[in-house]
Amino acid sequence: MKFSKSFEILRDTTFYMSSDTVHQKTLVKEIMSNSVISVDSSITATDAAKMMEDTGVGAIAVLENGSPVGIVTDRDFAIKITAHSYPIDTPIRRIMSAPLISIDPNSDLWTASDLMTTRNVRKLPVIDDDRIIGILTSSDLVKYFASL
Amino acid sequence: MKFSKSFEILRDTTFYMSSDTVHQKTLVKEIMSNSVISVDSSITATDAAKMMEDTGVGAIAVLENGSPVGIVTDRDFAIKITAHSYPIDTPIRRIMSAPLISIDPNSDLWTASDLMTTRNVRKLPVIDDDRIIGILTSSDLVKYFASL
Repeated sequence: MKFSKSFEILRDTTFYMSSDTVHQKTLVKEIMSNSVISVDSSITATDAAKMMEDTGVGAIAVLENGSPVGIVTDRDFAIKITAHSYPIDTPIRRIMSAPLISIDPNSDLWTASDLMTTRNVRKLPVIDDDRIIGILTSSDLVKYFASL
Repeated sequence: MKFSKSFEILRDTTFYMSSDTVHQKTLVKEIMSNSVISVDSSITATDAAKMMEDTGVGAIAVLENGSPVGIVTDRDFAIKITAHSYPIDTPIRRIMSAPLISIDPNSDLWTASDLMTTRNVRKLPVIDDDRIIGILTSSDLVKYFASL
């Protein structure tokens, strides 16, 4: 009877620990990538894609007058350029995803995972005071979870 | 003294649970998507991209003589079509990623996360007996972790 009670407590606490400690106490700013490529919305799709290839990233931030207005990801090249036949010299403002779905650097990883899942996005620009200071991707989260 | 000892056990067990139970006891087949689009390697990039848009997926499997030989993802449209200016009617065999990096349906999620991280891929076809029976993406893992 006492033994059974101990197990009950253990199970509850384990659930609490696996859900709260791991996700909710690690912050976005701790695992985000600090290097984000930001480009003006007037550059062409092909130039943007070349930058993404050279730097190995799957997304770049798009600025207008220095402020973040959108994001271009690999998916935009699949849909706009390849499925919809936009010319590859189309300015990225025409293929970017906007408005931005972004996250605060002090949010926890559970919030980030939940936002990605509910909004169906894989890359979250991290914005602090209207400046992009990093990017968090689903791969960053997977890498983090794999390291636990 | 007895109380302190209990906590010691609890902490060890919690660590064990968060690392081993969550990742290593949940199997790929439990959270993978069962619907995978497989196409012949001769279809064009634009037709493949249209299928990916219509179905909302970021990857399709590529077959030759009915056997899986590669995968086409959003990234391939960014790099091959947009950065390297391949025509959009290029057969997907020329833009696919091959050989396939795949996973067994009975692998655990830790193995899947680790494979994605070390091989730098975001989508893993799930192969059983030379047939693709599902696909596991980094988004699936994030969704799973967000639900814990």
